[in-house]
Amino acid sequence: MTSLLDNPNRHFEKRVPEGDDRTRDVCGKCGFIDYQNPKIIVGSIPRHGEQVLLCRRAIEPRKGYWTIPAGFMEQGESAEEGALREAYEEATVRLKIEGLLAIYSMPHLSQVQLIYRTTLTEQHFAPGYESLEVQLFNWEDIPWNELAFPSVKWALEQAREVWDGAPHPPFTNPEA
Amino acid sequence: MTSLLDNPNRHFEKRVPEGDDRTRDVCGKCGFIDYQNPKIIVGSIPRHGEQVLLCRRAIEPRKGYWTIPAGFMEQGESAEEGALREAYEEATVRLKIEGLLAIYSMPHLSQVQLIYRTTLTEQHFAPGYESLEVQLFNWEDIPWNELAFPSVKWALEQAREVWDGAPHPPFTNPEA
Repeated sequence: MTSLLDNPNRHFEKRVPEGDDRTRDVCGKCGFIDYQNPKIIVGSIPRHGEQVLLCRRAIEPRKGYWTIPAGFMEQGESAEEGALREAYEEATVRLKIEGLLAIYSMPHLSQVQLIYRTTLTEQHFAPGYESLEVQLFNWEDIPWNELAFPSVKWALEQAREVWDGAPHPPFTNPEA
Repeated sequence: MTSLLDNPNRHFEKRVPEGDDRTRDVCGKCGFIDYQNPKIIVGSIPRHGEQVLLCRRAIEPRKGYWTIPAGFMEQGESAEEGALREAYEEATVRLKIEGLLAIYSMPHLSQVQLIYRTTLTEQHFAPGYESLEVQLFNWEDIPWNELAFPSVKWALEQAREVWDGAPHPPFTNPEA
Protein backbone atom coordinates (compact mmCIF):
# COMPACT_ATOMS: atom_id res chain seq x y z
CA MET A 1 0.00 0.00 0.00
CA THR A 2 1.37 3.41 -0.89
CA SER A 3 2.38 5.33 2.19
CA LEU A 4 0.97 8.79 2.29
CA LEU A 5 4.19 10.05 3.80
CA ASP A 6 6.25 8.88 0.84
CA ASN A 7 4.11 10.56 -1.74
CA PRO A 8 5.31 13.85 -3.24
CA ASN A 9 1.77 14.89 -4.17
CA ARG A 10 0.44 14.96 -0.64
CA HIS A 11 -0.24 18.32 0.94
CA PHE A 12 -0.95 17.22 4.51
CA GLU A 13 0.38 19.23 7.40
CA LYS A 14 0.16 18.77 11.18
CA ARG A 15 -2.40 21.19 12.57
CA VAL A 16 -4.98 21.50 15.36
CA PRO A 17 -8.29 22.04 13.53
CA GLU A 18 -10.67 24.69 14.87
CA GLY A 19 -12.72 23.36 17.78
CA ASP A 20 -10.38 20.42 18.25
CA ASP A 21 -7.67 19.89 20.87
CA ARG A 22 -5.33 17.54 19.03
CA THR A 23 -2.94 17.71 16.14
CA ARG A 24 -4.36 16.09 13.00
CA ASP A 25 -3.17 15.65 9.43
CA VAL A 26 -4.88 18.48 7.55
CA CYS A 27 -4.57 19.01 3.80
CA GLY A 28 -3.07 22.44 3.18
CA LYS A 29 -4.83 22.66 -0.17
CA CYS A 30 -8.41 21.53 0.41
CA GLY A 31 -8.76 21.50 4.21
CA PHE A 32 -9.54 17.76 4.41
CA ILE A 33 -8.93 16.55 7.98
CA ASP A 34 -7.63 13.00 8.15
CA TYR A 35 -9.06 11.96 11.53
CA GLN A 36 -7.35 8.79 12.65
CA ASN A 37 -9.22 6.91 15.34
CA PRO A 38 -8.74 3.38 16.58
CA LYS A 39 -10.23 0.73 14.34
CA ILE A 40 -12.42 -2.14 15.42
CA ILE A 41 -11.51 -5.77 14.82
CA VAL A 42 -14.47 -8.14 15.02
CA GLY A 43 -13.82 -11.84 15.48
CA SER A 44 -15.13 -15.07 16.89
CA ILE A 45 -14.31 -18.29 18.64
CA PRO A 46 -16.30 -20.76 16.48
CA ARG A 47 -17.24 -23.76 18.57
CA HIS A 48 -18.56 -27.11 17.39
CA GLY A 49 -19.22 -29.48 20.28
CA GLU A 50 -15.90 -29.80 22.06
CA GLN A 51 -13.97 -28.51 19.05
CA VAL A 52 -12.97 -25.07 17.84
CA LEU A 53 -12.48 -23.89 14.26
CA LEU A 54 -9.20 -22.23 13.29
CA CYS A 55 -7.88 -20.81 10.01
CA ARG A 56 -4.31 -20.94 8.72
CA ARG A 57 -3.43 -17.55 7.27
CA ALA A 58 -2.73 -17.23 3.55
CA ILE A 59 -1.66 -13.60 3.86
CA GLU A 60 0.82 -11.49 5.76
CA PRO A 61 1.27 -10.69 8.54
CA ARG A 62 1.92 -14.12 10.06
CA LYS A 63 1.22 -16.07 6.90
CA GLY A 64 1.08 -19.82 7.64
CA TYR A 65 0.08 -19.35 11.28
CA TRP A 66 -3.28 -20.25 12.83
CA THR A 67 -5.86 -17.71 13.83
CA ILE A 68 -9.51 -17.26 14.66
CA PRO A 69 -11.75 -15.63 12.02
CA ALA A 70 -11.44 -11.87 12.55
CA GLY A 71 -10.98 -8.66 10.61
CA PHE A 72 -11.81 -4.97 10.31
CA MET A 73 -15.40 -4.01 11.02
CA GLU A 74 -16.94 -2.19 8.05
CA GLN A 75 -19.42 0.65 7.88
CA GLY A 76 -23.12 -0.16 7.87
CA GLU A 77 -22.90 -3.35 9.91
CA SER A 78 -23.20 -4.20 13.59
CA ALA A 79 -20.25 -5.71 15.43
CA GLU A 80 -22.01 -9.08 15.45
CA GLU A 81 -22.73 -8.91 11.72
CA GLY A 82 -19.08 -8.08 11.11
CA ALA A 83 -17.89 -11.08 13.10
CA LEU A 84 -20.21 -13.39 11.14
CA ARG A 85 -19.12 -11.83 7.83
CA GLU A 86 -15.44 -12.32 8.61
CA ALA A 87 -16.05 -15.98 9.52
CA TYR A 88 -17.79 -16.52 6.21
CA GLU A 89 -15.08 -14.71 4.23
CA GLU A 90 -12.19 -16.56 5.87
CA ALA A 91 -13.70 -19.98 6.56
CA THR A 92 -16.89 -20.20 4.45
CA VAL A 93 -18.71 -21.08 7.65
CA ARG A 94 -22.05 -19.98 9.07
CA LEU A 95 -22.03 -19.16 12.76
CA LYS A 96 -24.51 -18.22 15.46
CA ILE A 97 -23.55 -15.56 18.03
CA GLU A 98 -23.75 -16.84 21.62
CA GLY A 99 -22.44 -13.71 23.34
CA LEU A 100 -19.50 -11.38 23.63
CA LEU A 101 -16.44 -13.13 24.99
CA ALA A 102 -13.85 -10.38 25.24
CA ILE A 103 -12.78 -6.85 24.43
CA TYR A 104 -9.09 -6.28 23.92
CA SER A 105 -7.64 -2.78 23.69
CA MET A 106 -4.44 -2.63 21.65
CA PRO A 107 -3.26 1.00 21.94
CA HIS A 108 0.05 0.24 20.15
CA LEU A 109 -1.93 -1.00 17.14
CA SER A 110 -4.71 1.55 17.58
CA GLN A 111 -7.21 -1.29 17.67
CA VAL A 112 -10.03 -2.55 19.80
CA GLN A 113 -10.90 -6.20 19.27
CA LEU A 114 -14.41 -7.49 19.95
CA ILE A 115 -14.42 -11.29 20.13
CA TYR A 116 -17.65 -13.28 20.20
CA ARG A 117 -18.52 -16.76 21.41
CA THR A 118 -20.14 -18.54 18.48
CA THR A 119 -21.28 -21.98 17.39
CA LEU A 120 -21.36 -23.52 13.93
CA THR A 121 -24.86 -23.71 12.48
CA GLU A 122 -23.79 -26.24 9.86
CA GLN A 123 -20.84 -28.54 9.45
CA HIS A 124 -19.66 -27.08 6.17
CA PHE A 125 -16.50 -24.97 6.07
CA ALA A 126 -13.71 -24.32 3.55
CA PRO A 127 -10.76 -21.93 3.18
CA GLY A 128 -11.65 -18.46 1.92
CA TYR A 129 -9.32 -16.16 0.01
CA GLU A 130 -7.29 -15.25 3.11
CA SER A 131 -6.89 -18.81 4.44
CA LEU A 132 -4.69 -21.74 3.44
CA GLU A 133 -6.75 -24.25 5.41
CA VAL A 134 -9.55 -24.36 7.93
CA GLN A 135 -9.82 -27.06 10.54
CA LEU A 136 -11.72 -28.14 13.66
CA PHE A 137 -9.42 -28.86 16.58
CA ASN A 138 -9.92 -30.74 19.80
CA TRP A 139 -8.66 -28.60 22.64
CA GLU A 140 -5.53 -30.70 23.16
CA ASP A 141 -4.66 -30.56 19.47
CA ILE A 142 -4.71 -26.78 19.08
CA PRO A 143 -1.35 -25.72 17.56
CA TRP A 144 -0.41 -23.44 20.47
CA ASN A 145 3.05 -22.79 19.13
CA GLU A 146 1.79 -21.80 15.72
CA LEU A 147 -0.83 -19.22 16.67
CA ALA A 148 -0.66 -16.00 14.66
CA PHE A 149 -1.17 -13.42 17.41
CA PRO A 150 -1.12 -13.23 21.22
CA SER A 151 -4.79 -12.28 21.28
CA VAL A 152 -5.69 -15.58 19.59
CA LYS A 153 -4.24 -17.41 22.58
CA TRP A 154 -5.98 -15.08 25.03
CA ALA A 155 -9.34 -15.60 23.36
CA LEU A 156 -8.98 -19.39 23.19
CA GLU A 157 -8.02 -19.63 26.84
CA GLN A 158 -10.72 -17.26 28.02
CA ALA A 159 -13.31 -19.05 25.89
CA ARG A 160 -12.29 -22.29 27.56
CA GLU A 161 -12.80 -20.70 30.99
CA VAL A 162 -16.46 -20.08 30.22
CA TRP A 163 -16.87 -23.01 27.81
CA ASP A 164 -20.06 -24.30 29.39
CA GLY A 165 -21.16 -21.20 31.27
CA ALA A 166 -24.41 -19.40 30.62
CA PRO A 167 -24.36 -16.38 28.29
CA HIS A 168 -23.38 -13.34 30.31
CA PRO A 169 -23.44 -9.54 30.08
CA PRO A 170 -22.41 -7.05 28.65
CA PHE A 171 -25.68 -5.96 27.22
CA THR A 172 -26.01 -5.03 23.58
CA ASN A 173 -28.59 -2.77 21.91
CA PRO A 174 -32.02 -3.42 23.44
CA GLU A 175 -34.82 -4.55 21.14
CA ALA A 176 -36.47 -1.62 19.41
CA MET B 1 -16.35 21.41 9.43
CA THR B 2 -15.57 21.63 5.72
CA SER B 3 -17.18 18.82 3.79
CA LEU B 4 -14.78 17.05 1.53
CA LEU B 5 -17.51 16.64 -1.03
CA ASP B 6 -18.05 20.37 -1.35
CA ASN B 7 -14.42 21.19 -1.90
CA PRO B 8 -13.27 21.91 -5.47
CA ASN B 9 -9.67 20.94 -4.64
CA ARG B 10 -10.41 17.36 -3.73
CA HIS B 11 -9.32 14.65 -6.12
CA PHE B 12 -11.01 11.64 -4.56
CA GLU B 13 -12.70 9.05 -6.72
CA LYS B 14 -14.62 5.85 -5.92
CA ARG B 15 -12.40 2.83 -6.58
CA VAL B 16 -11.73 -0.68 -5.28
CA PRO B 17 -8.06 -0.63 -4.22
CA GLU B 18 -5.87 -3.57 -5.19
CA GLY B 19 -6.31 -6.48 -2.77
CA ASP B 20 -9.51 -5.00 -1.37
CA ASP B 21 -13.11 -5.99 -2.07
CA ARG B 22 -14.90 -2.70 -1.39
CA THR B 23 -15.19 0.66 -2.99
CA ARG B 24 -13.16 3.32 -1.16
CA ASP B 25 -12.42 6.99 -1.69
CA VAL B 26 -9.04 7.04 -3.41
CA CYS B 27 -7.17 10.22 -4.32
CA GLY B 28 -6.63 10.29 -8.07
CA LYS B 29 -3.50 12.38 -7.64
CA CYS B 30 -1.50 10.78 -4.83
CA GLY B 31 -3.17 7.38 -4.32
CA PHE B 32 -4.17 8.06 -0.71
CA ILE B 33 -6.94 5.63 0.33
CA ASP B 34 -9.43 7.15 2.74
CA TYR B 35 -10.48 3.99 4.62
CA GLN B 36 -13.63 4.72 6.54
CA ASN B 37 -14.33 2.27 9.34
CA PRO B 38 -16.74 2.55 12.23
CA LYS B 39 -15.53 4.76 15.04
CA ILE B 40 -15.53 3.89 18.72
CA ILE B 41 -17.35 5.96 21.31
CA VAL B 42 -16.13 5.39 24.86
CA GLY B 43 -18.32 6.47 27.74
CA SER B 44 -19.30 5.80 31.31
CA ILE B 45 -22.10 5.68 33.83
CA PRO B 46 -20.45 7.56 36.74
CA ARG B 47 -21.99 6.38 39.99
CA HIS B 48 -21.70 7.94 43.42
CA GLY B 49 -23.60 5.97 46.04
CA GLU B 50 -27.17 5.88 44.81
CA GLN B 51 -26.61 8.80 42.44
CA VAL B 52 -25.41 9.11 38.88
CA LEU B 53 -23.50 12.00 37.28
CA LEU B 54 -24.87 13.58 34.12
CA CYS B 55 -23.66 16.46 31.93
CA ARG B 56 -25.79 19.03 30.12
CA ARG B 57 -24.38 19.51 26.63
CA ALA B 58 -22.90 22.87 25.66
CA ILE B 59 -22.44 21.84 22.04
CA GLU B 60 -24.49 20.51 19.15
CA PRO B 61 -25.94 18.04 18.50
CA ARG B 62 -28.53 18.12 21.25
CA LYS B 63 -27.19 21.19 22.99
CA GLY B 64 -28.92 21.73 26.34
CA TYR B 65 -29.82 18.05 26.78
CA TRP B 66 -28.39 15.70 29.38
CA THR B 67 -25.91 12.96 28.61
CA ILE B 68 -23.36 10.65 30.14
CA PRO B 69 -19.66 11.50 29.63
CA ALA B 70 -18.67 9.94 26.29
CA GLY B 71 -16.76 10.74 23.12
CA PHE B 72 -14.53 9.46 20.36
CA MET B 73 -11.76 7.11 21.42
CA GLU B 74 -8.35 8.44 20.37
CA GLN B 75 -5.24 6.67 19.17
CA GLY B 76 -2.73 5.48 21.73
CA GLU B 77 -5.20 4.85 24.53
CA SER B 78 -7.16 1.85 25.76
CA ALA B 79 -10.96 1.96 25.73
CA GLU B 80 -10.95 2.33 29.52
CA GLU B 81 -8.44 5.20 29.38
CA GLY B 82 -10.58 6.89 26.77
CA ALA B 83 -13.70 6.64 28.92
CA LEU B 84 -11.84 8.15 31.88
CA ARG B 85 -10.39 10.93 29.69
CA GLU B 86 -13.80 11.87 28.33
CA ALA B 87 -15.24 12.05 31.86
CA TYR B 88 -12.45 14.37 32.89
CA GLU B 89 -12.81 16.55 29.79
CA GLU B 90 -16.58 16.90 30.08
CA ALA B 91 -17.12 16.84 33.84
CA THR B 92 -13.69 17.44 35.43
CA VAL B 93 -14.26 14.26 37.40
CA ARG B 94 -11.99 11.36 38.28
CA LEU B 95 -13.56 7.92 37.92
CA LYS B 96 -12.65 4.31 38.60
CA ILE B 97 -13.63 1.63 36.09
CA GLU B 98 -15.79 -1.11 37.62
CA GLY B 99 -16.41 -3.09 34.43
CA LEU B 100 -17.91 -2.93 30.98
CA LEU B 101 -21.63 -2.31 31.06
CA ALA B 102 -22.66 -2.41 27.42
CA ILE B 103 -21.66 -2.44 23.77
CA TYR B 104 -24.02 -0.72 21.37
CA SER B 105 -23.63 -1.08 17.63
CA MET B 106 -24.99 1.89 15.68
CA PRO B 107 -24.60 0.92 11.99
CA HIS B 108 -26.52 4.00 10.80
CA LEU B 109 -23.99 6.22 12.59
CA SER B 110 -21.08 3.90 11.85
CA GLN B 111 -20.33 3.76 15.55
CA VAL B 112 -19.74 1.22 18.27
CA GLN B 113 -20.25 2.53 21.79
CA LEU B 114 -18.42 0.97 24.73
CA ILE B 115 -20.00 2.07 28.01
CA TYR B 116 -18.34 1.37 31.36
CA ARG B 117 -19.68 1.13 34.89
CA THR B 118 -17.65 3.58 36.96
CA THR B 119 -17.59 5.18 40.39
CA LEU B 120 -16.37 8.62 41.43
CA THR B 121 -13.04 8.54 43.23
CA GLU B 122 -13.52 12.03 44.61
CA GLN B 123 -16.50 14.31 45.05
CA HIS B 124 -15.17 17.11 42.91
CA PHE B 125 -16.70 17.78 39.48
CA ALA B 126 -17.31 20.82 37.28
CA PRO B 127 -18.43 21.54 33.71
CA GLY B 128 -15.75 21.11 31.06
CA TYR B 129 -15.65 22.93 27.73
CA GLU B 130 -18.41 20.79 26.22
CA SER B 131 -20.80 20.97 29.19
CA LEU B 132 -23.13 23.66 30.51
CA GLU B 133 -23.55 21.98 33.86
CA VAL B 134 -22.73 18.74 35.62
CA GLN B 135 -24.92 17.28 38.32
CA LEU B 136 -25.45 14.21 40.48
CA PHE B 137 -28.99 12.85 40.22
CA ASN B 138 -30.98 10.51 42.38
CA TRP B 139 -32.53 7.86 40.16
CA GLU B 140 -36.04 9.34 40.44
CA ASP B 141 -34.78 12.80 39.54
CA ILE B 142 -33.04 11.89 36.27
CA PRO B 143 -34.43 14.18 33.53
CA TRP B 144 -35.72 11.31 31.38
CA ASN B 145 -37.43 13.63 28.93
CA GLU B 146 -34.34 15.73 28.42
CA LEU B 147 -31.78 13.03 27.62
CA ALA B 148 -29.63 13.77 24.60
CA PHE B 149 -29.61 10.36 22.89
CA PRO B 150 -31.50 7.04 23.05
CA SER B 151 -28.34 5.21 24.10
CA VAL B 152 -28.10 7.40 27.21
CA LYS B 153 -31.45 6.01 28.33
CA TRP B 154 -30.43 2.44 27.44
CA ALA B 155 -27.22 2.71 29.44
CA LEU B 156 -28.91 4.26 32.48
CA GLU B 157 -31.61 1.57 32.55
CA GLN B 158 -29.18 -1.30 31.99
CA ALA B 159 -26.82 0.10 34.64
CA ARG B 160 -29.74 0.13 37.05
CA GLU B 161 -30.46 -3.54 36.27
CA VAL B 162 -27.01 -4.53 37.53
CA TRP B 163 -26.65 -1.67 40.02
CA ASP B 164 -25.52 -3.88 42.91
CA GLY B 165 -24.41 -6.95 40.98
CA ALA B 166 -20.85 -8.22 41.01
CA PRO B 167 -18.52 -7.22 38.18
CA HIS B 168 -19.06 -9.58 35.28
CA PRO B 169 -17.37 -10.64 32.03
CA PRO B 170 -16.46 -9.84 29.25
CA PHE B 171 -12.81 -10.26 29.81
CA THR B 172 -10.34 -7.58 28.83
CA ASN B 173 -6.62 -7.88 28.07
CA PRO B 174 -5.02 -10.34 30.49
CA GLU B 175 -2.19 -9.09 32.69
CA ALA B 176 1.12 -9.18 30.84
